[in-house]
Amino acid sequence: MTLNPRRTLDELKALRELTGDADGAQRVAFTDVWVAARKFLTDKLADLPVEVHTDAAGNLWATLKGESDKELLIGGHLDSVPNGGWLDGCLNTLAGLEVLRRLSAGGKPPVTVRLVDWADEEGARFGRSLYGSSAAGGNIDLAEMRKLKDRDGIGLEEALERVGITLADAPNAREELKNAAAYLELHIEQGPVLEGMKLPLGAVLGTFGVERHTITFHGQAAHSGSTPMNVRRDAFRAAGQFSQEIYAIAERHSGVCTVGSCKTLPGIVTSVVETCEITLDQRNLEAGRLAAMWQDAQDAAKKFAEEGGCTVTFGDLWNIEPILFHPELIEAADASILDTVPHSHRLPSGPLHDAAEVARAGVPTVMLFVQSLRGISHNKIEDTEEEHILQSVEALDKLTDRAMAWVEQHG
Amino acid sequence: MTLNPRRTLDELKALRELTGDADGAQRVAFTDVWVAARKFLTDKLADLPVEVHTDAAGNLWATLKGESDKELLIGGHLDSVPNGGWLDGCLNTLAGLEVLRRLSAGGKPPVTVRLVDWADEEGARFGRSLYGSSAAGGNIDLAEMRKLKDRDGIGLEEALERVGITLADAPNAREELKNAAAYLELHIEQGPVLEGMKLPLGAVLGTFGVERHTITFHGQAAHSGSTPMNVRRDAFRAAGQFSQEIYAIAERHSGVCTVGSCKTLPGIVTSVVETCEITLDQRNLEAGRLAAMWQDAQDAAKKFAEEGGCTVTFGDLWNIEPILFHPELIEAADASILDTVPHSHRLPSGPLHDAAEVARAGVPTVMLFVQSLRGISHNKIEDTEEEHILQSVEALDKLTDRAMAWVEQHG
Repeated sequence: MTLNPRRTLDELKALRELTGDADGAQRVAFTDVWVAARKFLTDKLADLPVEVHTDAAGNLWATLKGESDKELLIGGHLDSVPNGGWLDGCLNTLAGLEVLRRLSAGGKPPVTVRLVDWADEEGARFGRSLYGSSAAGGNIDLAEMRKLKDRDGIGLEEALERVGITLADAPNAREELKNAAAYLELHIEQGPVLEGMKLPLGAVLGTFGVERHTITFHGQAAHSGSTPMNVRRDAFRAAGQFSQEIYAIAERHSGVCTVGSCKTLPGIVTSVVETCEITLDQRNLEAGRLAAMWQDAQDAAKKFAEEGGCTVTFGDLWNIEPILFHPELIEAADASILDTVPHSHRLPSGPLHDAAEVARAGVPTVMLFVQSLRGISHNKIEDTEEEHILQSVEALDKLTDRAMAWVEQHG
Repeated sequence: MTLNPRRTLDELKALRELTGDADGAQRVAFTDVWVAARKFLTDKLADLPVEVHTDAAGNLWATLKGESDKELLIGGHLDSVPNGGWLDGCLNTLAGLEVLRRLSAGGKPPVTVRLVDWADEEGARFGRSLYGSSAAGGNIDLAEMRKLKDRDGIGLEEALERVGITLADAPNAREELKNAAAYLELHIEQGPVLEGMKLPLGAVLGTFGVERHTITFHGQAAHSGSTPMNVRRDAFRAAGQFSQEIYAIAERHSGVCTVGSCKTLPGIVTSVVETCEITLDQRNLEAGRLAAMWQDAQDAAKKFAEEGGCTVTFGDLWNIEPILFHPELIEAADASILDTVPHSHRLPSGPLHDAAEVARAGVPTVMLFVQSLRGISHNKIEDTEEEHILQSVEALDKLTDRAMAWVEQHG
């Protein structure tokens, strides 16, 4: 049996039919719809000579035994955000299924190949993304996880129990990676880079490190009519200057910076802003540059505050280091793309992915990106050209062969 | 009997004791505390040869008949915002009381002199300031007033009834101004100008006209990690540029501009801002300059939006034209200040005052400002040096003599 990317496309559409509605995909982890999506996958896997089980954290594994116990993993996630897109996560799960079909029809592969459907990549319900892959990677804090509740007050632990998963056992999922020699993940780009270059496919260099902070400018409330401009201590003016500076900081260090939220106090039409709190999200593929970006941001905020008679304070929201993918697997990804289409492009990933958790657990990793239309995801209008979807399945299949060979030699 | 400014200071302190608490003044219009403040005033007036009544809108009038029916009015307001200051409004009411005492002790004055305590200058409870003076000035819309409710859902009409005022009759208060020949009002500055110049007193040129609008920048939400800086349509960036430009606009046209509130959507740390709504309050003493400021603001907002790939829309919040005080009464105010202290200064009023409603009704008007410490009002820390309070009562008294002479001659 040869690879049939069109079957993957048909299965993606069938899954959309089964688990979406007029507002988009509804495969939120641990819900009935997600369980239905999992059943859709396991029904397909039942036709293949693979061993299927769910691990202690709720990740679903399908194992095609090979000549060697060394394992090549192909991972995706069926779960979506509420009102999500039809491709985010499940493209790779179903593309991986098709690769398993092709491999199993050809007899025992040289190394063991496993498809994994990670549990709760999105973290949409409990605000903690990459749950399943971080458990497998050994990067999970049970005490923190137990605190998580959804908007209805249901705890993560309770939600897991409903689908037969015991949170206390989740760290045992680490067992699953003990023979892992390489990890592959195909994903939609979720950004506009490939579309802007008119390229269907790209090889991913790694995932950006992230520094997330609050920056609060403190000025002085004052009457909008009676306060001359030259004595104002306007917290919003300082924040406004800062909103321009992040573009220079991002360019200087080849990263991205975003002010996503601004809150003003007292926040009334008749008063100068006393307190202005903004959020800053900074990302870079190099740890040193990421640190320099955050330092520059603090320096700029202090300068603008001082110039405007204000002060500034900083708060921590979250951070993660950059995670670089394996250079030889990046080469293999590039070559596999060039086997499929005329051009390839290497690019970092702004969003995080399960691949980051697997890579930081020490497994050589690479990702393929396929072009996203308009760069939009997490929305029902998320889309990718059908031709590009077909090409992406083909490229993943070629990369699987290259990665198996690499695992045989180096893994 | 000679003028005794120290008695005014003592009465201000007694009123503070009677109507304030640890959080400041609580003389919110139409409440029991406000009624108690009114009784404090009418008890004092009972010792004077004045006719006292409450008009159809709830303003309190004390009339000292003079040789002429032409009337010189001295106005203030006992009402305060919740948790307000001890001087805002009642300084002039009690200073005017002291002037009436001095005048009545000297026999019949050349013109009739009336003290008015306006009802609900602040509009703190129903969001509509200058209620009593606008009714007397003939600038009241009963249908609009009937819609007003406080935060407990009590309507203005009901609140007025509780203190014996029938809203439907309020326009009859216009009768009170039919012989008005001039109007004087002393008020704390509520800004930092006189303090900055180390001057106790100033003559007020008029009240700023105000243009209040919303400005909404429309960009595109985009993932903070996957969206390169050069393709972003960042609504907050456009608003941030605008926040700087208002300082140039204010300087160019000798006015003031304030962005008091900023709201961002979706307003999350991981997304470029799609929609950013700010409020803009612009004030100027000249109508043409005020219009030019608003035009410049719109032009700048459009330019910044366009440069950043955004669009912009504008909304109306409120506006009022500039109201200029009478040039000869401004001269008289200046002269009266110079009789009292070594220096005077002419300045516009950023905040609105009852004087604006009287002036727009065609009554020649002027105000005196006394220095505010730190420029702060509407707060329990609102304060003025005692020496300056004493000087302000003296200057009002001298201005009353000058204004009576002016009314005799021109009124």
